[in-house]
Amino acid sequence: MDVISVIRTKRDRGRLTDEQIDWVIDAYTRGEVADEQMSALAMAILLNGMDRAEIARWTAAMIASGERMDFASLPRPTADKHSTGGVGDKITLPLAPLVAACGAAVPQLSGRGLGHTGGTLDKLESIPGWRALLSNDEMMGVLRDVGAVICAAGDGLAPADKKLYALRDVTGTVEAIPLIASSIMSKKIAEGTGSLVLDVKVGSGAFMKNLDDARELASTMVGLGTDHGVRTVALLTGMSTPLGLTAGNALEVRESVEVLAGGGPADVVELTLALAREMLDAAGLKDADPEKALRDGSAMDHWRRMIAAQGGDPDAPLPVARERHVVTASATGVLTGLDAYAVGVAAWRLGAGRARKEDPVQAGAGVELHAKPGDQVTAGEPLMTLHTDTPERFAYAIEALEGGVTIEPAGTAYEAAPIVLERIA
Amino acid sequence: MDVISVIRTKRDRGRLTDEQIDWVIDAYTRGEVADEQMSALAMAILLNGMDRAEIARWTAAMIASGERMDFASLPRPTADKHSTGGVGDKITLPLAPLVAACGAAVPQLSGRGLGHTGGTLDKLESIPGWRALLSNDEMMGVLRDVGAVICAAGDGLAPADKKLYALRDVTGTVEAIPLIASSIMSKKIAEGTGSLVLDVKVGSGAFMKNLDDARELASTMVGLGTDHGVRTVALLTGMSTPLGLTAGNALEVRESVEVLAGGGPADVVELTLALAREMLDAAGLKDADPEKALRDGSAMDHWRRMIAAQGGDPDAPLPVARERHVVTASATGVLTGLDAYAVGVAAWRLGAGRARKEDPVQAGAGVELHAKPGDQVTAGEPLMTLHTDTPERFAYAIEALEGGVTIEPAGTAYEAAPIVLERIA
Repeated sequence: MDVISVIRTKRDRGRLTDEQIDWVIDAYTRGEVADEQMSALAMAILLNGMDRAEIARWTAAMIASGERMDFASLPRPTADKHSTGGVGDKITLPLAPLVAACGAAVPQLSGRGLGHTGGTLDKLESIPGWRALLSNDEMMGVLRDVGAVICAAGDGLAPADKKLYALRDVTGTVEAIPLIASSIMSKKIAEGTGSLVLDVKVGSGAFMKNLDDARELASTMVGLGTDHGVRTVALLTGMSTPLGLTAGNALEVRESVEVLAGGGPADVVELTLALAREMLDAAGLKDADPEKALRDGSAMDHWRRMIAAQGGDPDAPLPVARERHVVTASATGVLTGLDAYAVGVAAWRLGAGRARKEDPVQAGAGVELHAKPGDQVTAGEPLMTLHTDTPERFAYAIEALEGGVTIEPAGTAYEAAPIVLERIA
Repeated sequence: MDVISVIRTKRDRGRLTDEQIDWVIDAYTRGEVADEQMSALAMAILLNGMDRAEIARWTAAMIASGERMDFASLPRPTADKHSTGGVGDKITLPLAPLVAACGAAVPQLSGRGLGHTGGTLDKLESIPGWRALLSNDEMMGVLRDVGAVICAAGDGLAPADKKLYALRDVTGTVEAIPLIASSIMSKKIAEGTGSLVLDVKVGSGAFMKNLDDARELASTMVGLGTDHGVRTVALLTGMSTPLGLTAGNALEVRESVEVLAGGGPADVVELTLALAREMLDAAGLKDADPEKALRDGSAMDHWRRMIAAQGGDPDAPLPVARERHVVTASATGVLTGLDAYAVGVAAWRLGAGRARKEDPVQAGAGVELHAKPGDQVTAGEPLMTLHTDTPERFAYAIEALEGGVTIEPAGTAYEAAPIVLERIA
């Protein structure tokens, strides 16, 4: 087998054979295929595509590059969720303990943020003492005792994906549906969950800017999961506007706790419940009542136990940024647009996100919104508050927000788009 | 400037700006842009193309990456030739001394072979004592004294191209017309020739398999040369059948000397004269008579002086392979097809070519043809002789020839295609 012939096959719009795919993934993981060869292949895949059978084999080869976990010994059915990433998307935080409170086991392996979308682990690390890194035994222990665990994926799961993802990140080859789908699904299938709900974001703040691309990504992933025996469902959800009223690490933890306490912004509550119902349904727990679990405090109880089991103090005050800057409305009228990408970049520049994998994040940094699309605003009144430990960043954050806020005359009709746009199963 | 945004521009079918091109070539040469990033960009260029202005700027940036030579001090006009490579293409050997004998100076910087096409330097190195590597001063000395020099290009010319060519070779990104054209022309323009004739091969044994691609490559290169003040002409010439009766290093030197002695195969003589006339014309020597220079021995005289000036002994016996194997005709009739690619791969496998840059070549190895398309052949009589020092390779060479020889019943009409198919100026 020869890597140049594999690259040429895809370059010339051919199908990769099973043998070519198995070989190239294995040889790349072993270092026999060089980074510059894999990046040329990734660009050819991005531009010329792969069919369903190629994507399935590519995913299987990445799973086969590492270990597989197994939750069959747990007394509860397992259900996991994956979001393709958005601005203010803190849903995993209330969702995992909520679904655990309803009887499923939630083995949530999460990542860190890169670019304008935040990472679940970064958010939870703003809780004093909380640890993302657990051994497999520790993870199983928390899962057994609490029913939910949120932690970093070990190095052993799909190492080919880990290497390929880092390469795609620096070679302009991230935005390829076959590669995104196989990257997500290889980790989720190797993780061993019995059912999986995918939250595929659509809009300015998401990877997928339009519904067609999101639909293709979602149905590709649902097909991959189903083929591997994982009950998989996808919701396409809106990401043109930030979720909730916060984008930032500690800011989002605070909002998540509000939801678990029975309050919180309506869109966050709605999406959390929609995903919880899908997870419980996929796990076969059709009679579970997640609304009740929010109301009666059992979801909050699971949250506190989950945080404590990983060394965190659920009662400790959350970090607060050293400096704040209030952005006021430039006009009086109806807020009709609040661009998710602009807010995401602003939060990132304030210190909530990182530009490179090695960068630290600020726990307290981010954007706090005082109005959402559809709300009346008054010129000179607060629209949002920017938080950071490094006030020299305010100017860059404000620059990112330029053009991201639209205010129209009072009386302008505004119709909110639904949160859940489509369901793909 | 950020390499990922440059890659994304081309990936998304945009135009690269002058600033993006200048920066990415310079940053790649300095090692700031990594190989895996450049190979992703090369694949995006291969699949999405570049327009004329982008190719011109890319070429200029590669020229600017190194030194430029200058032949203005020579008393004669300079003319150079470049062939895109074919099987049995030894034309440079008789052509350079022939054109020098007619009054032009020929600074022929050549390369080594890779894959199924031979390299001019490999061929000349089969002459005992001959040296390909000259200092710039030595090169100017031979050019001044003899009028023609064939030597290796120094490391100082277009180093960006050197690095990029090596990368393309291992990443399946060789076959991109913008990259081929800019690679060839950056070296030829940096070399400083006043006029240039391009021999763009078309057919099974060439890079360009069809006339449309060859035409596009030729006109792209003619435009680049003209824009840089080099009088540039291209001939599209056939490469479906090997040129002449030999493919191999010493074998082709022997045939070239036959041409210089006034003999040799008709197709080699025809193409040598056609290219010589174009070179002399482009150099402004419209009254030169290359046919006479072949007849009267002055071309041969320049050959002998050129070889001797680079340490070679023009009278020394050429190396001969240790083993031979005769391939006979399988039927009686008319030879209507002799595939250039099949013969090229056979010669390569016999040891005339190399698979990797570091590999040595055998001076005596190759294929000697006893018939050409249009000739009558008789079953059981010799069709070609294979030469090698390593007889275990005969089987692989014979395998390469399978399907490459077509014999039709006696009386079948055969019309030879012309050597020169088109002229582009």
